[in-house]
Amino acid sequence: MDGSNAGSRKLAAEAMLGRPRAVARLISLIENAVAGPDRAPDAGTALREVMAELATGTREPYRAWVIGLTGAPGVGKSTTTSMLIRTLRGRDARVGVLAVDPSSPFTGGALLGDRVRMQEHATDPDVFIRSMSSRGHLGGLAWATPQALRVLEAAGCDVILVETVGVGQAEVDIAKLADTTVVLLAPGMGDGVQAAKAGILEIADVFVVNKADREGARATVRELRNTVSLATAPWRPPVVTTVAVRGEGADELSTALDGHLAYLEESGEARRRRLARARDEIEAIALARLRSRFSGLHGDRLDALAERLLAAEIDPYTAADDLVAAVAHAER
Amino acid sequence: MDGSNAGSRKLAAEAMLGRPRAVARLISLIENAVAGPDRAPDAGTALREVMAELATGTREPYRAWVIGLTGAPGVGKSTTTSMLIRTLRGRDARVGVLAVDPSSPFTGGALLGDRVRMQEHATDPDVFIRSMSSRGHLGGLAWATPQALRVLEAAGCDVILVETVGVGQAEVDIAKLADTTVVLLAPGMGDGVQAAKAGILEIADVFVVNKADREGARATVRELRNTVSLATAPWRPPVVTTVAVRGEGADELSTALDGHLAYLEESGEARRRRLARARDEIEAIALARLRSRFSGLHGDRLDALAERLLAAEIDPYTAADDLVAAVAHAER
Repeated sequence: MDGSNAGSRKLAAEAMLGRPRAVARLISLIENAVAGPDRAPDAGTALREVMAELATGTREPYRAWVIGLTGAPGVGKSTTTSMLIRTLRGRDARVGVLAVDPSSPFTGGALLGDRVRMQEHATDPDVFIRSMSSRGHLGGLAWATPQALRVLEAAGCDVILVETVGVGQAEVDIAKLADTTVVLLAPGMGDGVQAAKAGILEIADVFVVNKADREGARATVRELRNTVSLATAPWRPPVVTTVAVRGEGADELSTALDGHLAYLEESGEARRRRLARARDEIEAIALARLRSRFSGLHGDRLDALAERLLAAEIDPYTAADDLVAAVAHAER
Repeated sequence: MDGSNAGSRKLAAEAMLGRPRAVARLISLIENAVAGPDRAPDAGTALREVMAELATGTREPYRAWVIGLTGAPGVGKSTTTSMLIRTLRGRDARVGVLAVDPSSPFTGGALLGDRVRMQEHATDPDVFIRSMSSRGHLGGLAWATPQALRVLEAAGCDVILVETVGVGQAEVDIAKLADTTVVLLAPGMGDGVQAAKAGILEIADVFVVNKADREGARATVRELRNTVSLATAPWRPPVVTTVAVRGEGADELSTALDGHLAYLEESGEARRRRLARARDEIEAIALARLRSRFSGLHGDRLDALAERLLAAEIDPYTAADDLVAAVAHAER
């Protein structure tokens, strides 16, 4: 066993003991492996070794309940997350929070400065809070998020809350990872609600209308209930109202979530979702590896092909065939 | 030459003559090839043949000026696009419009019902307007959009406007495709503006503050100018104010866009951006092909590997290695 391997074993062991520093260090390693918009994520040897230890050494893998929270900016995601942490801590659950920021892929954004709103839990040794930005393009979050979940799971988290800004692909990615997806709305955000309606119904397991003391709350709830009543899926998402900043609606939200968890277990859907998450994790790592091969081929074949495409000497499909053949050859 | 090939040649020829029906048909073929959240995009033989014809048969490939327009819902993207079409038509340019909807990946959403706002151009034979939804997961739009641009370019468009809702990955993808990226804002959307600021500066070539007759417009402009003044890149994005619904600011916008185009040509940046677009197009096709191989492997190896990961019998990196090796073997 070489030095690197010994260090990896130690780091893995400490993460599995739930040591906050080891957990933080590992999630940073994962985040840093997502290099930038023009490079595929790439785990170094140390990270690979630790992740292998965790994958096969965790006592009960895939035991944690992963709850995704998504919604437009300003809807109260962090406040709701904080309220949820209080409820869960009241039940003695160990809680992980992963705040995923898809908004600033180039810089590693600052959107989640509002972790401040979760400050009350900062000193609780059974609450792990981490934010993760998506510096990487093309599947950076799809690569990193399942691995970060794996780390939090290994650290003994009973519940993991994944919070993300709810528009577009990021929202869908979270829904694919989560056991239960909570979609947050607030009254008076008309345009957004209307616009998002079609897609939202397909990812939401529970709806929360937050800031329910504001004007228009009833209309928003009514509208949502109408939308939900059209759902044909076996699970019909409940609509809960909250004023998270005052802790109002905490019990109702908790009941709705428990209801969905019971449904997941009874229907066999829990296992299906976890299998899909495992598939996505493997596929994201495999794709990243193949992508990094594209650029790594000698003489940068992709650049040469792009030049020929620009000059109308080749078509894009033939160019892609050439690239795939070169990668396959290099992998042998 | 078989029947399929003859049909493909005819379709390609008609698209290159700028026949609206052929253009619409081709973009539908591209859109339909993006199959769904769980399948990789896959072009059939006919589409491949047509795209090959277009890639090597277009008189001046990569001649069109691709302008991306992005911004939050409600900011006035369609109205601004329509205003821009008027300006461009006044110069006798042939204009393509691609409205990309990333919000409803599962259903093929209805967000762009506001094509109604571009209705005035519906009967103009030199304006092609198409919307495209991102039914596909993981790179569906990255696969389809460059190909749709290729079709509009082949049809003789001098300018192509690509409009998309501006949050997260979709926005970045558009910025990578476009020669010039316009970021739209409106007064009084405080939260969003603040939140998006970090990332926005890195993708914007021109800022538009639309609905500039509204309260708070001056503050928004001032804030943006402050942000822009910090930019270190060689191009400093101008900030233009418009009231698109009344056509106000059309000339200023046009001047700002022309200024950026001149910069692109003089600096050599135009060629760099087009080369990057060609790279991305090839890479997206190659990745989709490799992804479809993942599921196509006999006995569905990915499912089997996911089962083993769930059972803690394997780690995700080893599983990914296995998958990549199997794909490489199948490609030989």
